Amino acid sequence: MTFDRTHLLGLGDLSRERITTLLDSARSFAEISERSVKKVPTLRGKTVVNLFLEPSTRTRVSFELAAKRLSADTLSISGSASSVVKGESLLDTARTLAAYAPDIVVLRHKAAGAALLLTQHIDASFVNAGDGAREHPTQGLLDLYTVREHFGDVAGLRISILGDVAHSRVARSAIIGFSKMGANVTVCGPPTMIPQGIEELGCSVTFSREAAVRSADVIMLLRIQKERLSEELFPSDREYRRVYGVDEDVLTFAQSHTMVMHPGPVNRGVEICPDVADGPRSLILNQVKNGLAVRMAVLFHCASGGLS
Amino acid sequence: MTFDRTHLLGLGDLSRERITTLLDSARSFAEISERSVKKVPTLRGKTVVNLFLEPSTRTRVSFELAAKRLSADTLSISGSASSVVKGESLLDTARTLAAYAPDIVVLRHKAAGAALLLTQHIDASFVNAGDGAREHPTQGLLDLYTVREHFGDVAGLRISILGDVAHSRVARSAIIGFSKMGANVTVCGPPTMIPQGIEELGCSVTFSREAAVRSADVIMLLRIQKERLSEELFPSDREYRRVYGVDEDVLTFAQSHTMVMHPGPVNRGVEICPDVADGPRSLILNQVKNGLAVRMAVLFHCASGGLS
Amino acid sequence: MTFDRTHLLGLGDLSRERITTLLDSARSFAEISERSVKKVPTLRGKTVVNLFLEPSTRTRVSFELAAKRLSADTLSISGSASSVVKGESLLDTARTLAAYAPDIVVLRHKAAGAALLLTQHIDASFVNAGDGAREHPTQGLLDLYTVREHFGDVAGLRISILGDVAHSRVARSAIIGFSKMGANVTVCGPPTMIPQGIEELGCSVTFSREAAVRSADVIMLLRIQKERLSEELFPSDREYRRVYGVDEDVLTFAQSHTMVMHPGPVNRGVEICPDVADGPRSLILNQVKNGLAVRMAVLFHCASGGLS
Repeated sequence: MTFDRTHLLGLGDLSRERITTLLDSARSFAEISERSVKKVPTLRGKTVVNLFLEPSTRTRVSFELAAKRLSADTLSISGSASSVVKGESLLDTARTLAAYAPDIVVLRHKAAGAALLLTQHIDASFVNAGDGAREHPTQGLLDLYTVREHFGDVAGLRISILGDVAHSRVARSAIIGFSKMGANVTVCGPPTMIPQGIEELGCSVTFSREAAVRSADVIMLLRIQKERLSEELFPSDREYRRVYGVDEDVLTFAQSHTMVMHPGPVNRGVEICPDVADGPRSLILNQVKNGLAVRMAVLFHCASGGLS
Repeated sequence: MTFDRTHLLGLGDLSRERITTLLDSARSFAEISERSVKKVPTLRGKTVVNLFLEPSTRTRVSFELAAKRLSADTLSISGSASSVVKGESLLDTARTLAAYAPDIVVLRHKAAGAALLLTQHIDASFVNAGDGAREHPTQGLLDLYTVREHFGDVAGLRISILGDVAHSRVARSAIIGFSKMGANVTVCGPPTMIPQGIEELGCSVTFSREAAVRSADVIMLLRIQKERLSEELFPSDREYRRVYGVDEDVLTFAQSHTMVMHPGPVNRGVEICPDVADGPRSLILNQVKNGLAVRMAVLFHCASGGLS
Repeated sequence: MTFDRTHLLGLGDLSRERITTLLDSARSFAEISERSVKKVPTLRGKTVVNLFLEPSTRTRVSFELAAKRLSADTLSISGSASSVVKGESLLDTARTLAAYAPDIVVLRHKAAGAALLLTQHIDASFVNAGDGAREHPTQGLLDLYTVREHFGDVAGLRISILGDVAHSRVARSAIIGFSKMGANVTVCGPPTMIPQGIEELGCSVTFSREAAVRSADVIMLLRIQKERLSEELFPSDREYRRVYGVDEDVLTFAQSHTMVMHPGPVNRGVEICPDVADGPRSLILNQVKNGLAVRMAVLFHCASGGLS
């Protein structure tokens, strides 16, 4: 089946022009959150379902608030304790929700391609809010937006992504998005965390933190899943910090204009130290703030058919 | 105490005329969910409390969305992790909520008669969203609505209900509702799942799946609670499927116009097979969709005093 | 850092005049909940975040409904199952939320001074909804409001507070609030539950239930945390009831006009008996109802800068 709907499944599907349109649109939505009355009637009478089948508060809150500031009705359903989900396939859950004629379904799911699968069966717009280790496109867009706001443009910048690239949908969307918009992306981390063939997404690889920091205009750190340390991919969090963490000492290798990003929540003292997270080079809170504007833009474009 | 309020506690309390009024009203509310702006100001400034003291996502979501599309304010409280509930009797919880002057309280509770009890102590309209194995009247109404929409009328139709009738409030509300509206209801299932004296509700009993299927215009399947299998009421789910499940082979006994219903969520491969659940005879997603319209009608009538 | 924001952190910070203004304002908001359309546009386009990092349903529901009746957008985040919180400090969680420019953050947290700490780092209005055993100012205000509505005035009244005063933020806010407004407060309980030096807040101490009851115009009972009994502060709940519980027999010592209050949820048969909780002297449900009006007033004053 095919439906005439607009989705946001991944940055891999979007042209450079579409991305630019979304970022421009996000800028005008950002202004709404600075008003005294932080609400516009744009999506009044539209229904946005947040279906989060992996735990998440940050991303869900951001989407929920984006929908509310656009005056949409929202329904939030999370996987745990949800009988919609228990004993049902994802497809059955989605078909049930689709019977209520939602305009947009925001889906987080542990399986790569989950949102894409649903677009083939369900007549609603889907926004992928993270599908396994594949993509997290609104995170990629907010990263692009944050860099563009700070540097004026993305093209030609050097972006170094440090951490567990292999298990990170944030990294994948960033690599795809920044490459597409003309930046040069380098990924860096322990060999156990850099997947073979990652260069095919359009990035370079280094295993040297110093090299990644020296060359970068933007250092993007990834959250280390502590359960992956010590038993699996790296000896311990202390060891990770020593070799791949970023603190003010490490930043002495960086250029004076270099900025630091992190998708949050941060593990202070592991991949990032407080002096950096809270320091003048940090764009971390800008990312959070911009995430709201970007998600308002995405919901608007999906509801009005402006993406394709 | 008595209060001058309109409730929906069970289909047993409603006259044929009241049911017809509700179904007619649901039809006009159904149209709202097909608009671009899926919202009317009917219940603006009214408060609907969803008090779900048994786990449920489907029914809660349906009521919550029904309330939002009518512009009511909603509060959803679920039993687990709720300090309203911990260490408090149901009556104390309800009295506390009633202090906020809600217009409607939608209650799901494991005890038969829970909503009825509260109507005697609390000044609010109550909608029973399932009380133990007694009634689930909005499910019964949506089943009636679905059959009426498909067949044009309910009177004279033969409805066969298959499954664990003994533990099913869905079955009870359906038997009561369909009988009252002039249909002929037969229940079918293993003897352990058919309660003695069920005929008093106005239905016949058979233990033969083939007989139930042959005679039916509508086959209504019940969800099998898997925890009731093997240890208690039936040897195993494979055995259940073999003797009481419905697949395309079983439907060869059915008339060509016969339709299949199920309250969801379905156990594919137990009481129903995918070829039937997703096939051309299935009204399952219509039921979900119609549930929203029926609940909008019920909330409207309760808030405006139109039921009694 | 300092921000030009209005907070409600504790009754200790408020002048008598401010408290009177809030109570007067609550009276006008109370009227809204008695209308057919229980909603005013006062806080339209404002965002209220309920951040409850200790379990609570009652207080959260009251704040959520208060915000909705004022037409604010609400976001409710609770501690359990919240990845905003996991692995993050309170400050990081709050900074993340602050990036969305909420107008008001309602915070419940186990640490005394948690809300105060955040006001020094985050540009939003904070309402303390309970910080450890320190203060619960909206509870104190609703207690004041309830007494004022019933007796006409607070000044000169004798208030006896019975229970685990040492671990009760409700008791602290009540002692501070009633003393400030000119009432005479006595606390009473087993010596293990009365902290040394409590008189410095402006109250007297007695260990005799009879003395506390005899002298009181208002008897305010505290909820006994059952986990504190038997192992820690008192032998058992039966023993507690015998020595410090209040039933109709105990109230024979009271004056005929004396009223009973309790913050809820009540432990029937421990600190209070059903004949009292549901009897003619009980103001318990008035407290719940007034809590909504008081919280509407607090949200309004915080959003409009009317407190300081």
